[in-house]
Amino acid sequence: MKNRVLEMLQSAEGYISGEAISGKLGISRNAVWKHINKLRSEGYGIESVTNRGYRLNSSPDIISAEKIQENMNTEFIGRKIVYMEETDSTNNAAKAAADMPDGTLFISEIQTSGKGRLGRAWESPKGIGIWMSLLLKPEILPQDVAQITLVVGMAAAKGIGCGAKIKWPNDVVIGTKKVCGILTEMSAEIERVNYVVTGIGINVNTEAFDGELSEKATSLYIETGKKCERCGIIRAFLENFEALYKKFLRGGIAALAEDYRELCITIGKEVSVIYPNRTINGKAVDINNEGELIVETETGTVTVGSGEVSIRGIYGYV
Amino acid sequence: MKNRVLEMLQSAEGYISGEAISGKLGISRNAVWKHINKLRSEGYGIESVTNRGYRLNSSPDIISAEKIQENMNTEFIGRKIVYMEETDSTNNAAKAAADMPDGTLFISEIQTSGKGRLGRAWESPKGIGIWMSLLLKPEILPQDVAQITLVVGMAAAKGIGCGAKIKWPNDVVIGTKKVCGILTEMSAEIERVNYVVTGIGINVNTEAFDGELSEKATSLYIETGKKCERCGIIRAFLENFEALYKKFLRGGIAALAEDYRELCITIGKEVSVIYPNRTINGKAVDINNEGELIVETETGTVTVGSGEVSIRGIYGYV
Repeated sequence: MKNRVLEMLQSAEGYISGEAISGKLGISRNAVWKHINKLRSEGYGIESVTNRGYRLNSSPDIISAEKIQENMNTEFIGRKIVYMEETDSTNNAAKAAADMPDGTLFISEIQTSGKGRLGRAWESPKGIGIWMSLLLKPEILPQDVAQITLVVGMAAAKGIGCGAKIKWPNDVVIGTKKVCGILTEMSAEIERVNYVVTGIGINVNTEAFDGELSEKATSLYIETGKKCERCGIIRAFLENFEALYKKFLRGGIAALAEDYRELCITIGKEVSVIYPNRTINGKAVDINNEGELIVETETGTVTVGSGEVSIRGIYGYV
Repeated sequence: MKNRVLEMLQSAEGYISGEAISGKLGISRNAVWKHINKLRSEGYGIESVTNRGYRLNSSPDIISAEKIQENMNTEFIGRKIVYMEETDSTNNAAKAAADMPDGTLFISEIQTSGKGRLGRAWESPKGIGIWMSLLLKPEILPQDVAQITLVVGMAAAKGIGCGAKIKWPNDVVIGTKKVCGILTEMSAEIERVNYVVTGIGINVNTEAFDGELSEKATSLYIETGKKCERCGIIRAFLENFEALYKKFLRGGIAALAEDYRELCITIGKEVSVIYPNRTINGKAVDINNEGELIVETETGTVTVGSGEVSIRGIYGYV
């Protein structure tokens, strides 16, 4: 019934009286008033003026499968969408439903225990971010799954826009702060991938970050001063991802290397590669066909497949 | 009640009458007779003689956690055992319970859809084989999980005995036929393994294999002419595995290489490495520290990380 009240507000030109709504829907004026209040609590801006009635001034930024898929130009990525009001983590939801089709998107308004890499937590508050996971079924070897994370990072940077760049391998930053994190997991045999789940968290309309986080994290709202519509960003990500992913499946990272170099802020910079037991300093010069970072040090060239890489001399996340 | 009938048979010296059982357990003679028949259908050899009663002559080869752990000398491998009468696949059961402790063993009398590598089926009939999976939580990188499969193969060959050897990487053969197959799966992030599940299938008391399979598969019974007690083999596997696995976690494959070379029939042989789109012929000369097979060909040395490797000139599985 609440949705029918909303529909009447949406289709009204200007004001519509409480009487008109109650008459049309066969409910009491008091019930109309309760539904209006519920809608307001969900973020709808509804004005009420004595003797004129109600008017819908603004709608909250709501995520729905329909809205994401509106005019979406993909073949299999995001053609199936599992939307959840709340879940522990969209990666967990995707892993639990791994029999769904290649390219299925899992998205939730809230993650109650969103995950970052290596067991770290990822804050996922309601209404202001994009917390989603893609289920993929590539016919590649487990050791090549790391390459997919580069493709996801590229698609996220392109989908986000606003000058977003990639910090190798796949964190997305604006300036020196992180706007998007990616956590890729897989289920695999030794010679075969069962499935890959790649989780993407994008800070969209966050107004501010607290304490230490404010030095490392940013949002599209903080960077642009404008509230963004999340479904548009999701759609842009899915479209970009499918185009890049198809190229990758045909030609590997080599087919995307030029694009990646342009988006990657790490290449060309002095970096520190931090391993559990030592740190390597050098200059990142390129990525190779496996997506590994090539670092030139005083004692020779090192290929970095994983590990924390920080860009020296820049304050912030990168 | 059936188990109490069994207990009375087990504790009787010689024959025990149906009246004695029915009196002691407070059930009818007809009920005793039904339980006896049920026990016979489960493989118990129960003799019945008029005027003397029942006598237990033989017990079936039953698997139980208690029997496996009897005098077992391990610290964490197989200290927790999940026994199932029937499951689809013990690997699936382990993956679904991946929050259980490192070293938990999942074992089932029957697998209704046992899995081999690359989606192949694995026959897992009741009572005559060992169908089990180990849950492991090593702190290693996903690309190093393949090395664990070598350790599992070594432990299986040692646990099975009877001259069992390894066909690289981890099939266990007696002569030219396969007696044990291993399917290792993992859940992982790019830089971290969540867990590894390694499934081990051993043909123990199979009396014969049908058709084509008879040329490729064997069982301990076929090789030795004797029925084997499965719990002893499982225990020997677990003990061998823990010792080898601890060495591996400390020193990698290098720490086990000498042992592996002795067990591996592939090394020193002319082999064909079969890839989806080509075949490489050469001589397998060793394994390296990543557990990969080193093959010398006419045009140079090749390192083989995965793929089907067959030993040339030998008929059968290998």
